[in-house]
Amino acid sequence: MLNKVLEYLDKNLEKNLEHLFSLLRFQSISTDPAYKDECRKTADWLVEDLKSIGFTASRRDTPGHPMVVGHHPGPFDDCLHVLFYGHYDVQPVDPLDLWENNPFEPSLKEQNGNKIICARGASDDKGQLMTFIEACRAFKEKTKQLPVKVTILLEGEEESGSPSLIPFLKENADELKADCALVCDTSMWDANTPSISVGLRGILGEEVVVTAANCDLHSGYFGGAAANPIRILAKILAGLHDENGRVQLPRFYDGVEETPLQILQSWDKLGCNAETFLSPVGLSISTGEKGRSLLEQVWARPTAEINGMSGGYEGEGFKTVIPSQASAKVSFRLVHKQNPEKISQAFRNYVRSLIPADCTVAFKEHGASPAVQLPYDSPFIQAAQDALFQEWETPALLTAMGGSIPIVGDFQSIFNMETILVGFALADDRIHSPNEKYNLKSFHKGQRSWVRILAALANRRINGRNSCSSR
Amino acid sequence: MLNKVLEYLDKNLEKNLEHLFSLLRFQSISTDPAYKDECRKTADWLVEDLKSIGFTASRRDTPGHPMVVGHHPGPFDDCLHVLFYGHYDVQPVDPLDLWENNPFEPSLKEQNGNKIICARGASDDKGQLMTFIEACRAFKEKTKQLPVKVTILLEGEEESGSPSLIPFLKENADELKADCALVCDTSMWDANTPSISVGLRGILGEEVVVTAANCDLHSGYFGGAAANPIRILAKILAGLHDENGRVQLPRFYDGVEETPLQILQSWDKLGCNAETFLSPVGLSISTGEKGRSLLEQVWARPTAEINGMSGGYEGEGFKTVIPSQASAKVSFRLVHKQNPEKISQAFRNYVRSLIPADCTVAFKEHGASPAVQLPYDSPFIQAAQDALFQEWETPALLTAMGGSIPIVGDFQSIFNMETILVGFALADDRIHSPNEKYNLKSFHKGQRSWVRILAALANRRINGRNSCSSR
Repeated sequence: MLNKVLEYLDKNLEKNLEHLFSLLRFQSISTDPAYKDECRKTADWLVEDLKSIGFTASRRDTPGHPMVVGHHPGPFDDCLHVLFYGHYDVQPVDPLDLWENNPFEPSLKEQNGNKIICARGASDDKGQLMTFIEACRAFKEKTKQLPVKVTILLEGEEESGSPSLIPFLKENADELKADCALVCDTSMWDANTPSISVGLRGILGEEVVVTAANCDLHSGYFGGAAANPIRILAKILAGLHDENGRVQLPRFYDGVEETPLQILQSWDKLGCNAETFLSPVGLSISTGEKGRSLLEQVWARPTAEINGMSGGYEGEGFKTVIPSQASAKVSFRLVHKQNPEKISQAFRNYVRSLIPADCTVAFKEHGASPAVQLPYDSPFIQAAQDALFQEWETPALLTAMGGSIPIVGDFQSIFNMETILVGFALADDRIHSPNEKYNLKSFHKGQRSWVRILAALANRRINGRNSCSSR
Repeated sequence: MLNKVLEYLDKNLEKNLEHLFSLLRFQSISTDPAYKDECRKTADWLVEDLKSIGFTASRRDTPGHPMVVGHHPGPFDDCLHVLFYGHYDVQPVDPLDLWENNPFEPSLKEQNGNKIICARGASDDKGQLMTFIEACRAFKEKTKQLPVKVTILLEGEEESGSPSLIPFLKENADELKADCALVCDTSMWDANTPSISVGLRGILGEEVVVTAANCDLHSGYFGGAAANPIRILAKILAGLHDENGRVQLPRFYDGVEETPLQILQSWDKLGCNAETFLSPVGLSISTGEKGRSLLEQVWARPTAEINGMSGGYEGEGFKTVIPSQASAKVSFRLVHKQNPEKISQAFRNYVRSLIPADCTVAFKEHGASPAVQLPYDSPFIQAAQDALFQEWETPALLTAMGGSIPIVGDFQSIFNMETILVGFALADDRIHSPNEKYNLKSFHKGQRSWVRILAALANRRINGRNSCSSR
């Protein structure tokens, strides 16, 4: 039975690829209002596609770009219910001249012996979300049903801060809440090794603007007397870390837990160290906390990072100015139970303590979401691990993620619902960059993986493993 | 005799103002190649003007904008020879919408009970240089001669780095070298108190570019491992000063002399402190070296100043990037005998010592000129002091200057020639900014001051004070 479904996907790979190309042709850039109509058209296309598989689907307008919601019953009333989440919007495409093909005219190419799908959104997230939809289509074609009850939620604002998401989740909680969520927006460990993300760092973004004089000053006239906001800010930023790479804000590490030894050991076995991790970007030395492995540093430890700094004359040549203002953007990656609000307060108090009495500082928050830590021994995750092993013939790694996927936290906090994060992207997919690509193998085996995962989840339920359901 | 000359200036103020307006109408912006022709026309106008006073004058083309050179004999063969320097080029005018009138359509206005001349260049330096030319014209009109031999050198590249100046001085040394130089490009202490600048800080400009990874990185993926060039640069910049405001580079203070006590006391009498000096720009606390008076800090002590810093995402909103590069522009104001080359080396060594082994740094020098310190007891300066006292009825202050006027150093090093820096600009003249102005009183009494100074210099020579002449 499962084999028939998998065979169907093998035979229809070319057709499914053409189908994905149709989706990739939509210029659904959510951050630019000029593409509002394109986003709506993309949503309409997805609604029609879900309907063609037998979903009850509709476009759900929001103050921003619309959501797409589809429902499909399972084989029996009390069966497991999964909520699949993906997003159909994409990042802007500039600089356009660095693209080898039109970013919205997808093409299949060869690269290092692999077939790759080249287009904006090929990997993030249109290609990934279609792996799930094609898995559903294959089940319907060969078995007339889906093995579990499926709700699909496709967002159109993921690349522009998801302003409508939380209100939408809250307003439609009864409709959307399921036994577990499935998200396909992450990467594999490498081209042959699948992975499931169980830890996701949270994030706190802070912008600091220091103002000294009420106008830019000539450094010849005022230099040696007037406060220089760049100097003030440099001192603030230089004091964020101690010499061992630890963040120096008071109580910053409150809520940070030690990662279980067996997990640390499984990461150590991956043979990843500062040199192997950093060499692709031309670096070799980790600047993280001393005494922690590289993977622990990027997956399970909190960080403070300066994402931008600006002040004074930045153009060609030289200008002897003491600027009135200087600004910096600082983000903190949070883990485990760190509290974003408390860290924001600690950061701002620290900054204020270094502002001279005749200068001022203003703050702006750019998002605050706590980390998400899923249980390593969740039965949902174990089912997905088993399924991925069958497809890839290598154990799926339980990894943590350095980045943030806020929706996983929202599913946890709003629906008290666990999320299985399985994705088939690769580190070299160039997401958010020119020449984004998705390996054809990811697209193909991704579909097969979802077939196996849905079957595995259904089996656990059928076998009476109530732990699979929170109901 | 002197009174006749002064009276002439009083009677012809309106005519001289019209004459200045003609000069101000030229759009002689030297930094923008679009105004090359305007600069040439300005030079031609000045040549004709000098000829009309009896100077042998010519436009002297350079690889950049032309110089204007004029010669006028003195009353007898062995008389004192002065070289007057000014510049006819001006700063760009943007932002244009902040100007109350067209910057090149000069107008006379009332402001706080003073008549002011409003135009780009009104103060810096067309209005100032014309005070000297009108003084010469008045002498010629009323006495048929000039009291000393006068050479006038007017530059067209002062606002764009003076690339042609040193070669021109060297190639024409015999023609230009005089007993002393007169420069009219500085300010008065206040609207009623003239001043002569005897100390000018030198400058060293350094640009630092730190490169970490070979491309911008996602801080979610690489944060906690990859070097962040902004963090490196913040540490470098934060370490430039100690807690007492002293610059921490090794041997930075080599060559710095203590200012004579009597000079420090004369500055103390001015009643200038951090609050009075900084309050116009909204500040009140000096960040300079502890234990030094405000005026000593800005006139006679060296500084390190960060003029610009740039790295990562600086736009609206937030981007979780670890940039590949970050850069800063740092300038040092130098005093007395500090050596710019040695300080550049010390700075670069200091920076290199803080660059991690897998990162790189590149430097770019933006000018290096030593400080100039003129003798407080120079007979030229004493003559000018006497003359200014007669005109303004208050003693002329001997001050130092925070800024740099490289030509004074060039006159000293190339011609071994002292410079008398007398100017009539005011701190609120908005030079380099929109709505630049020059007080009509500065223009009028500036002309009268030069008449008195030229007469005083001639008298000293006549009286056999050989110390006035280096010949």
